[in-house]
Amino acid sequence: MPESIALQPADVLIIPRWLLPMEPTGALLTGHAVAIRGETILDVGPTEELERRWRPRERVELPDHVLLPGLINAHTHAAMTLLRGIGDDLPLRRWLEEAIWPREMALMSEAFVYDGTLLAAAEMLRGGITTAVDMYFYPEAAARAFAAMGMRSVLGITVIDFPTPYAADADEALAKGLAVRDAWRDEPLVSFVLAPHAPYSVSDETLERIATLAAQLDLPVQIHLLEAAQEREESLARHGETPLQRLDRMGLLGPGLIGVHAVHLTESEIALLVERGAALVHCPTSNMKLASGIAAVPRWLEAGIAVGLGTDGAASNNRLDLFQEMRHAALLAKVGQGRADVLPAMQILELATIGAARALGLEHRLGSIRPGKAADLVAVALDAVETQPCYDPCSHLVFVAGREHVSDVWVAGRRRISGKILLLQENNRPLSALAQNWRQRIQLQIR
Amino acid sequence: MPESIALQPADVLIIPRWLLPMEPTGALLTGHAVAIRGETILDVGPTEELERRWRPRERVELPDHVLLPGLINAHTHAAMTLLRGIGDDLPLRRWLEEAIWPREMALMSEAFVYDGTLLAAAEMLRGGITTAVDMYFYPEAAARAFAAMGMRSVLGITVIDFPTPYAADADEALAKGLAVRDAWRDEPLVSFVLAPHAPYSVSDETLERIATLAAQLDLPVQIHLLEAAQEREESLARHGETPLQRLDRMGLLGPGLIGVHAVHLTESEIALLVERGAALVHCPTSNMKLASGIAAVPRWLEAGIAVGLGTDGAASNNRLDLFQEMRHAALLAKVGQGRADVLPAMQILELATIGAARALGLEHRLGSIRPGKAADLVAVALDAVETQPCYDPCSHLVFVAGREHVSDVWVAGRRRISGKILLLQENNRPLSALAQNWRQRIQLQIR
Repeated sequence: MPESIALQPADVLIIPRWLLPMEPTGALLTGHAVAIRGETILDVGPTEELERRWRPRERVELPDHVLLPGLINAHTHAAMTLLRGIGDDLPLRRWLEEAIWPREMALMSEAFVYDGTLLAAAEMLRGGITTAVDMYFYPEAAARAFAAMGMRSVLGITVIDFPTPYAADADEALAKGLAVRDAWRDEPLVSFVLAPHAPYSVSDETLERIATLAAQLDLPVQIHLLEAAQEREESLARHGETPLQRLDRMGLLGPGLIGVHAVHLTESEIALLVERGAALVHCPTSNMKLASGIAAVPRWLEAGIAVGLGTDGAASNNRLDLFQEMRHAALLAKVGQGRADVLPAMQILELATIGAARALGLEHRLGSIRPGKAADLVAVALDAVETQPCYDPCSHLVFVAGREHVSDVWVAGRRRISGKILLLQENNRPLSALAQNWRQRIQLQIR
Repeated sequence: MPESIALQPADVLIIPRWLLPMEPTGALLTGHAVAIRGETILDVGPTEELERRWRPRERVELPDHVLLPGLINAHTHAAMTLLRGIGDDLPLRRWLEEAIWPREMALMSEAFVYDGTLLAAAEMLRGGITTAVDMYFYPEAAARAFAAMGMRSVLGITVIDFPTPYAADADEALAKGLAVRDAWRDEPLVSFVLAPHAPYSVSDETLERIATLAAQLDLPVQIHLLEAAQEREESLARHGETPLQRLDRMGLLGPGLIGVHAVHLTESEIALLVERGAALVHCPTSNMKLASGIAAVPRWLEAGIAVGLGTDGAASNNRLDLFQEMRHAALLAKVGQGRADVLPAMQILELATIGAARALGLEHRLGSIRPGKAADLVAVALDAVETQPCYDPCSHLVFVAGREHVSDVWVAGRRRISGKILLLQENNRPLSALAQNWRQRIQLQIR
C-alpha cells in the first residue's frame, strides 16, 4: 500500500503476536495492533487497518509476545522493601511486635521512604506493574520516588491512631497528607486515597473525619479489613459492633471504600458490601505467609464485588510481583474451594487489570486497552524454553510466565522498560548499593 | 602465601559469598569454598585453607551468590512439557479424561518422550534442578534426553494395568523397563526406580511382581498415593482394604517405598509409614491446581518421615520449577495449619535437597555439599534489585529468589549452566522450534 495513505501521525505502533485488551471480556486477539499518541491509547484494531491509518514515529514488533494492560498492584507498603524478609516464619503477633513495628518506629524517615519506594518502584515496573496503591507514611517522599521511576501511583494518606515519627496523631497525618495532595495536584501520574490503617487502629472520631473528607474531596478510602479472625471479636468486645457495622455507621461503607484482605467475611457481610458498592483487594501471598486464612474470592466475584490483587509489603510476601499474586490467587482459590475449575485464567487476569481499576474507581483511565485510556501497557515474551509450547497465552500468563518474561513496559505512553529499566539507567542510580547501605544500617540498629 | 605450597591439583575451586552445605543441618557459611575433582566434591572449608591446599585448573568467584546443593525434583512426568497448560481450570476427572489421557494415548511415542524430556531437562537444569525422578513411558528415550542435557535422572520403570502405545500390559512394561536398565547400567548419571502408577491403576498380581523385583534388584518403588480423597473409599469398596493396607500386604511398604502426593493420609497411616520406613514426596503446586487438598507436611516431618519435593508434570503445574515448589510448600503449610511459624525456610531447603536425597535413598551421593559426594551444585545470585536488601539468604531462596536468579549449575563436576545452557549451545538444538512443531501437531490432533 502506498505510504502516503497513512496521513495521521502517531507516536508508537505496537504489533504483538497476541493482544489481550481485557475489554471486551474474554477477548484474545491476533493480527491486532495498538497505536499510542502522547499519554493515551489512540487506536486498537486489525494491524493492516492501523498501518493504513497511522504514520507512527516508532514501530515496535513483538512477534512472540502478549500485549496486555499494565498490571495494577492494588495494595502495597512500598518502602518496606528495605525490610524485605526480616522476621520470616514468625507467628503474626510476634512478627509485628518484635520484627516490624520496632524497626519501623526506629527507622522511618523521609530518606527511608524515598529510597525504599524507589527500590519498590524499580522492582514493580520491571515486573509489569504500572500502577501501585501505596499505604505508608511520608507520601511526599513516596510521590517523588514513584515519579523518579516514571511509574503511576495512588498514594495513601495513611492514618493510624498512635504517634509515629511521621505524625504525632491522626490530625497531623491528615493535614500533612492533604498538603502533599495539593502540592502534587498537577502531576498526572499521581493520585491519592485516604488510608485509615484498620478499624482496630483508628478511633471513631478519626474515622468520622475521614468519612467527611472522603465525601468533600471525592477521595476513595482504603483500609485493612478482617485480615485476622480475632478482629471481629475484638471489635464486638470494644465497640459492641463488628468492624463492618462500625464502618457502615460512620458512613464509610460506600462505592469509594476499598477493603484489603477481607479473609474473614461472613456471607451477610459479603451481601452488605455488595449493597453498599464497596470494593475489595485480595493479597493471596501475604494471607498464606502470615497464615491469615483463605479469602472467599470466588464468592466475592459471584456476588458482583469489584476485586483487585495486591502484593502487600515486601516484609510479608516477599516479592512485589503480580505474576506471583495472579498464580497464587488461582491456586489458593482452587485448593481452598476444593474445585479445580474456580477462578480460571481469564478471571485472574481481570483481577490484576480491569478488576483492580474498577475497585479503585479508575476504570475510566486504566485496566484495559481501549482508545482514550492511558497507554499503560506490558509485553510478555512467551518464546523461552520454560514457556514452550503455548496452547493458550492466558493460561501461560497465570500458570507459566513470571515477571522475568516481561520485555517491555509503557506508562502513560512512555517506554520505561525495554529488557532493562530505562529511566534508572538514565539517572544512573545504583539501586543495589542503596539497598545494601540500608541493610548495613538496619542490621546495626537490630543489634 | 607462596604458590608452591598448593601442590595438589583440583579441577575447580568455587568461592561463593554464602555456602549452604545442608549438612550439618542449619549451617550457613561465609568465607568458605568448595573444591571439585572429576565428578566429586573434593574439599569444603575456609577459602584460605583451600587456596593453600589445592591448585585448581579453574577458579569461580561468586561474590553475590549462595552456593547450595543441586535441587532434586523428586517427582515429575518430564515429557508432559509438550502438553503444558492443556486443559487448565477443568475439574480433575474431566481434566484427566478429556484433556490428558486421550491426547497421551494418541501422541505417545519415542519421539514425543525424547523431545518432551529434552525440553523438560533444559527447563529444570536452567532452574537449578540437577536430578529428576521421572515417571513416564519410553524410559530409554527419556534416558537419552536427560543424558543429552547432562542432567542426572532417576527413571521410572512405569507400570499401569491398561494397554498404552508403549506396552500392551504390565509384564511388557516391566520387561522393557528392565532391559533399559541393563543397557544403561554403566551410565553414572542414570538410575532407575520401579514406578507402579497408583494403587487404583495396578492389580494385586502386578504389585506383587513389583515387590519381588524391588527386593531382588534392590530398586526403590515410587507410586502415586492418596492424591484424591475418594481413593481410600474406592479401594475399600474394591479390595476390602485401604491403599496402604494393600501395599503393606504386598510387602511394598518398606524403606524403598516413595509415596507421591499423600494428601489424604490419616494419623495412623502416618504412623504406619514411619514404622515401615517409607518416604513421601510433596507436590504443592499440583495439589493446589488440581484442588487435591493440603498435605500435612509439618506432621510428616515431625513424625520423622523422609520427604522430598516434586513439581509433578507440566500439565498440572505448569512450571518444572523447584524454587516455586519451595515457596508453595512453605506458604501452603502456613495457611493450611493456620500457623505462620511452620516449615521455616531452612526446613524447606532441606525438602529440595538432602530431604529428597534421603527419600530416594541417594543421600550417600546427593543432597548436600560434603567431600566425597557428587559435585551437583547450584549458584543463585542475590544482587538483583528485586532480591535486595538481603538479611537472610535462606529466607531469600524460599521467599524472594526465583529460578531466574540461578547463575551457574554443575552436574557431576561439569558446569552445565553459566547464565545460559552450555550443552544446549554446543549441540545447537533449537528447542523452542521443537516445542512449536509439537504444538502444531498436537493442536491439529485436538481438532
